[in-house]
Amino acid sequence: MILESIERENDIKKVAPEQYNQLAQEIREFLIQKISVNGGHLGSNLGAVELTMALHLSLNLPEDKIVWDVGHQSYTHKLLTGRRAGFENLRKYGGMSGFPKRNESECDCFDTGHSSTSISAGLGLVKARDIMHQNHTIVSVIGDGSLTGGMAYEALNNAARMKTNFIIVLNDNNMSISENVGGVSKYLNNIRTADKYLDMKEGIYNSLMDTKLGEPIVESIRRAKSSVKHLVIPGMFFEDMGITYLGPVDGHNINAMLKVFREAKRCKSAVLVHVLTNKGKGFLPAERHPARFHGAEPFDIETGLPLKQKTKSNYTDVFSTVMCKMGEREEKLVAITAAMADGTGLKRFRNMYPERFFDVGIAEEHAVTFAAGLAAGGLKPVVAVYSSFLQRAYDQILHDVCIQNLPVVFAIDRAGLVGSDGETHQGIFDLSYLSSIPNMNIMAPKNKWELSDMLKFAIDFEGPIAIRYPRGEAFDELKEFRAPIIYGKGEWIYKEKDIVLVAVGSMLKTALAVREALVLDGYFCSIINARFVKPIDTDILDEACREHSLVVTMEENVASGGFGEKVRSYLDSKKGSKVTPDILNITIPDEYVEHGNVDILREEVGIDAASIIRKIKKRFEREA
Amino acid sequence: MILESIERENDIKKVAPEQYNQLAQEIREFLIQKISVNGGHLGSNLGAVELTMALHLSLNLPEDKIVWDVGHQSYTHKLLTGRRAGFENLRKYGGMSGFPKRNESECDCFDTGHSSTSISAGLGLVKARDIMHQNHTIVSVIGDGSLTGGMAYEALNNAARMKTNFIIVLNDNNMSISENVGGVSKYLNNIRTADKYLDMKEGIYNSLMDTKLGEPIVESIRRAKSSVKHLVIPGMFFEDMGITYLGPVDGHNINAMLKVFREAKRCKSAVLVHVLTNKGKGFLPAERHPARFHGAEPFDIETGLPLKQKTKSNYTDVFSTVMCKMGEREEKLVAITAAMADGTGLKRFRNMYPERFFDVGIAEEHAVTFAAGLAAGGLKPVVAVYSSFLQRAYDQILHDVCIQNLPVVFAIDRAGLVGSDGETHQGIFDLSYLSSIPNMNIMAPKNKWELSDMLKFAIDFEGPIAIRYPRGEAFDELKEFRAPIIYGKGEWIYKEKDIVLVAVGSMLKTALAVREALVLDGYFCSIINARFVKPIDTDILDEACREHSLVVTMEENVASGGFGEKVRSYLDSKKGSKVTPDILNITIPDEYVEHGNVDILREEVGIDAASIIRKIKKRFEREA
Repeated sequence: MILESIERENDIKKVAPEQYNQLAQEIREFLIQKISVNGGHLGSNLGAVELTMALHLSLNLPEDKIVWDVGHQSYTHKLLTGRRAGFENLRKYGGMSGFPKRNESECDCFDTGHSSTSISAGLGLVKARDIMHQNHTIVSVIGDGSLTGGMAYEALNNAARMKTNFIIVLNDNNMSISENVGGVSKYLNNIRTADKYLDMKEGIYNSLMDTKLGEPIVESIRRAKSSVKHLVIPGMFFEDMGITYLGPVDGHNINAMLKVFREAKRCKSAVLVHVLTNKGKGFLPAERHPARFHGAEPFDIETGLPLKQKTKSNYTDVFSTVMCKMGEREEKLVAITAAMADGTGLKRFRNMYPERFFDVGIAEEHAVTFAAGLAAGGLKPVVAVYSSFLQRAYDQILHDVCIQNLPVVFAIDRAGLVGSDGETHQGIFDLSYLSSIPNMNIMAPKNKWELSDMLKFAIDFEGPIAIRYPRGEAFDELKEFRAPIIYGKGEWIYKEKDIVLVAVGSMLKTALAVREALVLDGYFCSIINARFVKPIDTDILDEACREHSLVVTMEENVASGGFGEKVRSYLDSKKGSKVTPDILNITIPDEYVEHGNVDILREEVGIDAASIIRKIKKRFEREA
Repeated sequence: MILESIERENDIKKVAPEQYNQLAQEIREFLIQKISVNGGHLGSNLGAVELTMALHLSLNLPEDKIVWDVGHQSYTHKLLTGRRAGFENLRKYGGMSGFPKRNESECDCFDTGHSSTSISAGLGLVKARDIMHQNHTIVSVIGDGSLTGGMAYEALNNAARMKTNFIIVLNDNNMSISENVGGVSKYLNNIRTADKYLDMKEGIYNSLMDTKLGEPIVESIRRAKSSVKHLVIPGMFFEDMGITYLGPVDGHNINAMLKVFREAKRCKSAVLVHVLTNKGKGFLPAERHPARFHGAEPFDIETGLPLKQKTKSNYTDVFSTVMCKMGEREEKLVAITAAMADGTGLKRFRNMYPERFFDVGIAEEHAVTFAAGLAAGGLKPVVAVYSSFLQRAYDQILHDVCIQNLPVVFAIDRAGLVGSDGETHQGIFDLSYLSSIPNMNIMAPKNKWELSDMLKFAIDFEGPIAIRYPRGEAFDELKEFRAPIIYGKGEWIYKEKDIVLVAVGSMLKTALAVREALVLDGYFCSIINARFVKPIDTDILDEACREHSLVVTMEENVASGGFGEKVRSYLDSKKGSKVTPDILNITIPDEYVEHGNVDILREEVGIDAASIIRKIKKRFEREA
């Protein structure tokens, strides 16, 4: 095993060139084996094996820096920087992250997780290097999918002005998480499908060589003024902006890449190296089903099938089904996703109503303002998006949707703790950042039937409205509680006295467990399903105050700006009446939450049933 | 006066073509006269007179739609749609907005204010039109400055896929609010400076005609495969993406534009019309000083000089001075602006330390992650930005700066009510959206000396930290209170009993007035200058609780998620001690605040001294 001889960064340089392919093979086998057990991002990592090797052979880490866009393709980088053992606990609580982390290795220079940040961050590192008179190399590695995100373009626009070296590797697998879309994809594809690769040193303008006049044209253009001469090179858009373009180069040919990187390091400007790779390379199921193996659950290596068969439907499935049904009833219903047709469950809607489905690429900002335009034009748009990714569109929600009070529905999936993707992907801020936006309305369902009812309610609603629901299995109890959704109104699940739990969405399940334990211990305990986080149901809270001395709010969101603070503010503002109960806010603390199994994380942050019971007993006893 | 004959939309079509130039002249004189009295956006409106006329002549409003990017260039549009009288109260409370507003006219189809949204919104209107089987024309008008914003590119990337008509007018004056920057600007400039305009109908490839082989080359390329043939047309990047490119055309030549728009309406795809205009056209001071006349205060028409001489320095000046001073002491200090070197006061820093100054264009997302990269590289970045524009970078603050706890300073200008720009520009959400981000710290200065001290403190601080300060004159009293800034600590200004006002930043001035009135009426009243909004100073609050029965928090921010809720949560959580005082949160209500004089707005939202005194007396009497 060559892989075992690699104990730390730069060890790869001791490997003989004729063994590169074997090492690549060993890395692939290692990754497939580990990910098949722990789950993780398979396709993108298999695609980037040789690219990562070539970078490590060309650079001197940790002095030189690699910024990995999104970061889920950094597994080979981790392997080559002394973290082989970490794969035993990949993405597990306390174990190695699936993303680059500065606190994990000196060789990780910048944490990533969301798309399209790497060129901006790399540019910052470049300017810092220059101002501090250092001379290491900085490389940002970005996929073609990430290039559909606007901030990548903002960064390219700035990189273009540089008179100093900065290497941008465009890892082009013609694919974001699902199929890549849009004009830039088309543009890159034109380059990909060019007959021959360019010889970079000679700068032969191959594209033209096929035309009738051939060489004379090329020569003539070569001598023409600069604004014309770049136009016929692949990548001339980058060239025209002021970014040197090198490529395309085969991203599975290490020697070819080594040659290009040598060239790239010599440039006194930003240089874009266009590398062509295949997602899932070397593992047939992943090559064939890129979406399924993007972020994979543990799977059987022989068949590629998931080890754990899904038995219960999750909220995404429920959303998917209702959208398809509503699409038939409501002709004005349209659906928007930012490169997540699979993940958000819109694939079936797309197949049934292709004209009313829009995948805008990894472009949440555009997605939201586009939805605002659709609504202003008279349609009923539903934006399906993960909680943490919607953070990108905060201003668009506030400025383009809510000022005009437009009827846009936000179907916010992965709200709350998401588990193994960790800090960058936890959906624990949405109640805070959405609550403070005027005109916004927010709901959270207690179970799968309620998600269905809420989605229907939202589609009929005349203003901005969000439904947030968690990752994973949908809660399928309490089917008997299916009163119609009424704007701004919660519902009683149990109505007793003393303690009342006011639970938001996913916390209802926990509330049931908390109540059961408390009742066994002789307490009286009521439960309210909040349903609406904004506006809060002041009537039901008033009613609750009459018979209860402790109000416990429960939400899977940070404390600051969340549901609990709203309830507290409301009840506290009534303090004049002198009968207000004590309030206990169960929330995620105001901190980032790392990766790990969701159940463990819940315990760690204190929102599991046992922790809540402890806190309630303590508080209730203090009051008594 | 031809202008007076225009009473409503489409009236312009009755004007004889030979009178177009006279009408343009009348519009310019009208705009200069009105803006010289009321203030407003002069340069961009003078530049867009003929463009707007040509659009109105080509379209049929309100069926056809124009989306104005940013929207401050829509004055001629307002004039041509029956709103001439509105200019008497332009930007005044209750008067006409300086931006497009759906509630102002049927001819305003989408509200704008922030940059780079128009293509997304326009695309939404286009898809709605098609799905609803309508056939009107939709035009988005975007400046070259707005094209540096990433979401414009996200939208272009999506527009490229369209097989239906959508007109994007690129209003290119080679300038955003100040000088335009970056690769795209360079690219557009290459087109602008081409020797001749293209004849669009013939599609002659002028650029090549100057080269030796001339016509044969052009002919050969014309017959070559599509991926090559577009490369030599100006605008081929747009063409390559799939967007038809027409132009460039003289934006002050109405007939030329009418011809292009006729062409554009025939396209069965997205079509970009590249229009060249001069900012400030027709008013020499505005042509010469584009930044000063971007958003102008009332001025003397003869000289172009502002009517009201500035007597006191504002917070922006203070920031500017301290940055220059600190730049000398601290070699690692770098400053970043998103196209606002003038507005944020960084112009002097730029002149003194050009190597450490970065204007990234209208690209707040990139600005923040770039700053994170600079900080990760060992520098001390200060991002100077307006409060409402920083909303664009919410995810970048949360994801790129704060997870890694990087020492980035956010100098947040125009925090609080900004006045005549209205809803889209009020800086009334920053305390909410920043407070819920872990690791973020937030300060607000009571006066100009404190801004200076806080900025120095922030530059030395080892983590993310924001200072928010308002537009306009800096408060220059209480110079005697200049105790060193201590992390997380507030300060006593008056220490009495009964009522304590806890004021955030700009509200300290109001607190003094409130206290004065209360004391005259026989109340005791203390004042705390909060200094830190996050973390809140629990020690000083504990101390305050001992001697006071009413705690009044005062902030220029919405209620939800703001300082008041934090203080309330803290004090309320101590309720067990049974000695907690009553709490009154003075905040802006959870609503958008329209345009108008700031003093009037303060009264309207109830954060002026008189309103606060009324509320305190009412509450205090209830408690007593």
